[in-house]
Amino acid sequence: MKVWTVVKTVLMVVLLIAGTAWPARAADRDKLLTEPGVYGTFAAFQMDHDWWDLTGEARVIAVSEVKGLIEQLSNKVVIESYLLRGLSDHADFMFRVHARALADTQQFLTSLLGTRFGRHLVATSYLHGLTKKAAYVPGFPDQMKMDLKAPSEAGTKSYAIVIPIRKDADWWALDQNTRLALMQEHTQAALPYLNAVKRKLYHSSGLDDFDFITYFETEKLDEFHGLIRALEQVKEYRHNRRFGHPTLVGTVRPLDEILELFAR
Amino acid sequence: MKVWTVVKTVLMVVLLIAGTAWPARAADRDKLLTEPGVYGTFAAFQMDHDWWDLTGEARVIAVSEVKGLIEQLSNKVVIESYLLRGLSDHADFMFRVHARALADTQQFLTSLLGTRFGRHLVATSYLHGLTKKAAYVPGFPDQMKMDLKAPSEAGTKSYAIVIPIRKDADWWALDQNTRLALMQEHTQAALPYLNAVKRKLYHSSGLDDFDFITYFETEKLDEFHGLIRALEQVKEYRHNRRFGHPTLVGTVRPLDEILELFAR
Amino acid sequence: MKVWTVVKTVLMVVLLIAGTAWPARAADRDKLLTEPGVYGTFAAFQMDHDWWDLTGEARVIAVSEVKGLIEQLSNKVVIESYLLRGLSDHADFMFRVHARALADTQQFLTSLLGTRFGRHLVATSYLHGLTKKAAYVPGFPDQMKMDLKAPSEAGTKSYAIVIPIRKDADWWALDQNTRLALMQEHTQAALPYLNAVKRKLYHSSGLDDFDFITYFETEKLDEFHGLIRALEQVKEYRHNRRFGHPTLVGTVRPLDEILELFAR
Amino acid sequence: MKVWTVVKTVLMVVLLIAGTAWPARAADRDKLLTEPGVYGTFAAFQMDHDWWDLTGEARVIAVSEVKGLIEQLSNKVVIESYLLRGLSDHADFMFRVHARALADTQQFLTSLLGTRFGRHLVATSYLHGLTKKAAYVPGFPDQMKMDLKAPSEAGTKSYAIVIPIRKDADWWALDQNTRLALMQEHTQAALPYLNAVKRKLYHSSGLDDFDFITYFETEKLDEFHGLIRALEQVKEYRHNRRFGHPTLVGTVRPLDEILELFAR
Amino acid sequence: MKVWTVVKTVLMVVLLIAGTAWPARAADRDKLLTEPGVYGTFAAFQMDHDWWDLTGEARVIAVSEVKGLIEQLSNKVVIESYLLRGLSDHADFMFRVHARALADTQQFLTSLLGTRFGRHLVATSYLHGLTKKAAYVPGFPDQMKMDLKAPSEAGTKSYAIVIPIRKDADWWALDQNTRLALMQEHTQAALPYLNAVKRKLYHSSGLDDFDFITYFETEKLDEFHGLIRALEQVKEYRHNRRFGHPTLVGTVRPLDEILELFAR
Repeated sequence: MKVWTVVKTVLMVVLLIAGTAWPARAADRDKLLTEPGVYGTFAAFQMDHDWWDLTGEARVIAVSEVKGLIEQLSNKVVIESYLLRGLSDHADFMFRVHARALADTQQFLTSLLGTRFGRHLVATSYLHGLTKKAAYVPGFPDQMKMDLKAPSEAGTKSYAIVIPIRKDADWWALDQNTRLALMQEHTQAALPYLNAVKRKLYHSSGLDDFDFITYFETEKLDEFHGLIRALEQVKEYRHNRRFGHPTLVGTVRPLDEILELFAR
Repeated sequence: MKVWTVVKTVLMVVLLIAGTAWPARAADRDKLLTEPGVYGTFAAFQMDHDWWDLTGEARVIAVSEVKGLIEQLSNKVVIESYLLRGLSDHADFMFRVHARALADTQQFLTSLLGTRFGRHLVATSYLHGLTKKAAYVPGFPDQMKMDLKAPSEAGTKSYAIVIPIRKDADWWALDQNTRLALMQEHTQAALPYLNAVKRKLYHSSGLDDFDFITYFETEKLDEFHGLIRALEQVKEYRHNRRFGHPTLVGTVRPLDEILELFAR
Repeated sequence: MKVWTVVKTVLMVVLLIAGTAWPARAADRDKLLTEPGVYGTFAAFQMDHDWWDLTGEARVIAVSEVKGLIEQLSNKVVIESYLLRGLSDHADFMFRVHARALADTQQFLTSLLGTRFGRHLVATSYLHGLTKKAAYVPGFPDQMKMDLKAPSEAGTKSYAIVIPIRKDADWWALDQNTRLALMQEHTQAALPYLNAVKRKLYHSSGLDDFDFITYFETEKLDEFHGLIRALEQVKEYRHNRRFGHPTLVGTVRPLDEILELFAR
Repeated sequence: MKVWTVVKTVLMVVLLIAGTAWPARAADRDKLLTEPGVYGTFAAFQMDHDWWDLTGEARVIAVSEVKGLIEQLSNKVVIESYLLRGLSDHADFMFRVHARALADTQQFLTSLLGTRFGRHLVATSYLHGLTKKAAYVPGFPDQMKMDLKAPSEAGTKSYAIVIPIRKDADWWALDQNTRLALMQEHTQAALPYLNAVKRKLYHSSGLDDFDFITYFETEKLDEFHGLIRALEQVKEYRHNRRFGHPTLVGTVRPLDEILELFAR
Repeated sequence: MKVWTVVKTVLMVVLLIAGTAWPARAADRDKLLTEPGVYGTFAAFQMDHDWWDLTGEARVIAVSEVKGLIEQLSNKVVIESYLLRGLSDHADFMFRVHARALADTQQFLTSLLGTRFGRHLVATSYLHGLTKKAAYVPGFPDQMKMDLKAPSEAGTKSYAIVIPIRKDADWWALDQNTRLALMQEHTQAALPYLNAVKRKLYHSSGLDDFDFITYFETEKLDEFHGLIRALEQVKEYRHNRRFGHPTLVGTVRPLDEILELFAR
């Protein structure tokens, strides 16, 4: 037992040191997170119960393998991690992976699943989307454009929420101008909340069973709830054939913290 | 076998003593349970079948770990426990967790799942909601406001029922006055039952796949059934796109009693 | 192997003797099965595959534990048993439990699940309902009332079918007189079949995801099928938002016979 | 390994000899397969993964137990077998069981599940129906009646398809004459395909979650596909609330062949 | 450990050599992939977690068995393989199998599932379709016919997407001319994307729960996404009762590469 404690400590130190090398080079990373034409994948996983039958040492080794893997692929994919455990049923954690090619995302996730750690993972839901230039903003009034450009509050955004959406056929049958008017009303309703809630939109028609993935980050969940309530009250909401299912709720966490939960 | 019986008895005594320290300080607890702006999480769990392959001693130790955990976090979260086993399929027990921040709830549930006990739990459904000031009551007639203030019958309320609700898009598209009128009719229908049935409402749009979580406590299940029947007959009911699924039914139980079921 | 055969025989004899003591006192039992204000629970279970890894002896002991339990609680709950295996997928057997309080039903089912036998059970569906005085019969013509009072054919009723129903919002929005007229047409269509098919209605709004549980017993399944076909053709049928899902089909069987299947 | 090979061969020979005794007496069998008032059950099963952990010898013994069972019950039930593996997901094989009483079908399936072979089976779907005299044919024009009487092509029919159907409430609300007209149009569309596709209809309202089970046998799957396409284009198709879910596709196979797959 | 490494290497070499013999004779293969009257099956599988408990050597042997099997059946079926892992949840890889008879496909898949490798597979979804002559193209304007004949861009098409579709009853009730007009609008919208996206259509009414399987190959996923968005905006899209569920996304991969993932 004592030997094991020492081993664990040593391995944990190794893990933490390795951790500092993780993020992709800053410039690339920024581009992947902000430019259009980038693929975003939300991959939620659950740990199976057999994992806990491994010895603590085996778990630590398995976890360190994941760290190595992520470091190795960090020049191709930007990986952000979220703890879903305790907030979303049927999922323990989630990765948001940004890449220029979905094949790179697949390489990362396939490698992950091939590790000793990954063999105990169940992929509960994968959502894929593509970032694109804003479709309606160019047609908005100037004041609204300016309001949308205002940066959200500085500081930590602890919570992340993912809500995929499928629109009904009526929505897609509307002409661009009608949709523009509806999206302007939608945006007007959202404006008061944008200071507290960061949003990002992914287009997913054909890439999964949804048309959009909406991603939110906030420190103030009540403001986020207020935003969704406001959006439910505009006419565009009638065109959501499916909204959520799943709704994924979690907290933004460094990978080290998440892995540590499964190592100890 | 005999040694084990002794060990079990001793551990049970320890458990029961520890049990007395559980509740958060009374004042904080009351605030969390009554004020707006508090997050309520309903977390239902099922025990996997492997749990019963542990020795009785291992189970008792695992259970006592949970007790320690809850005590430790009792200053941040108020935890109430319910036995669902035998009343709700696919779930054995449920926690209702109140906290000022959902991150505290996550910390509790993540810690729980990390215990030897928790490793055998399957999270069957998590529902999150936010308490808010009553949206329509201020517009009700004075008599109705007074009727709503009348305290419900004193005495034990053995049963607890959780029914999550998603409204249709038409509901949210109605103006505030129309919704006020519909909610007044809804409340009028509910009034005769409020003496026997305690209600609490959580707003969950964006936090899970529902818009509301309705929570009920009663000693008289037939009165509760009468309440739901009465509510089904008002116009507002037409706007429930989803009502239940799941409907969680259980009995209010001290945590000790629930854990004891899984320890013996 | 021989010793085991002897043990098995002895235990089986014990089981069969114990079996005779099972039913609650006749008078109470009759009241629970006929009076309004009684809770009826339909609890369907499936045996997991690990059960069959136990030794035959262990299975017999486990089964005898169930018998003891039921005897012990027989003054509070009336338990009827059904074999679903071979007729309903995903379920092996079902209990219909009548009790004055759902807490008593929970005590029985929780105790059952806590036995060595119960640890191998998966609760596939629980349906709860309340017996109430007939809502529409008082408004029916006298002839119909008399027809409804005619006792069904004497003799065995081997088959039991459970069909839960959720009505649509339109149904509940109808006034009592309109519903009365629709239910009169419904009853008129059912009359020719009542001689062969015994029916019992439970109200479940709020107690599970349905509004009603309809329970049928018959020796002639073709007559039962004819009854359902007849009921599908009346206007009231349009108001069934969900009809079945699950439809549980089984045969009425003494508990001994069911348990014996899992003991051998 | 060698000994085992010998044992396997011997057992297989026993199996094949036993196999010849299987079918019910020809006359009874024909009646059960053609007369009205007979219950047909479609029972699809999946083998669990643990099965393959048994030794080859244990598997052969288990399989031979099934053969014995079927022989024993062959005077009460007519059992046909289908290989679904490789054509239907989540199911490996299917039995079509015809019996005068569903209790006999239950006895067979319960006995099957009680064998060493059956303990590894998961019942993925059971569908029950009743054969009845044709409801609309008597009202059809004489030419159509004659066309329907023409026997289908002789020769093997390798493929079998099961499609259960639930009609909508509107269908059942139509009067008999309107339904007759719609079914005449339906039948007219089907006629060109009846030479290549054998059909059989079971009525299942109340016996499971469907109203009908449609069963097809053909050697030419493209003709069968053509038939379904033709039926989709008639007005009666609008009244199918659920069509398939599941659609079971397989090949007609002697039981020996199916069991052999799981023995080797 | 060293011996094992040698064995693994040797076996891998054997695997790779064997691999060269795999494809069916080129002419037959081309016909199966292009002619009408061919059955196409999309079979997606997931590897169970027990697979990884096998020794590495056992896994390599199991994988080589699959190679042998495919070689053996290569004169009857054309098998293409796709890696879904990391892109589709609940599935690891997919086969597209073309055959003149679905019985040949069944033989292949049944044999596959009977291998040591196959015993660890879960069949997550099977979709069957039939290739047919284009139903609407003959009625299109000449220019459109010519545009459709233009070959798509040469070069690798890394990604494959499968979207099954069920049309609503209204669609099938439209007359041929109306459907022709709608399909012409549909095709017009698709034309700009056909250079980058290869399409293939399978008719599946009756063969599974869908009416069509649409299959796409592309190197440019953003173009594919653009194609689906364009198709969502035409009137024909309103007649899709179900679109996706599942949407299968993967990359085209030689079987060797896929099997190697599960061997190492």
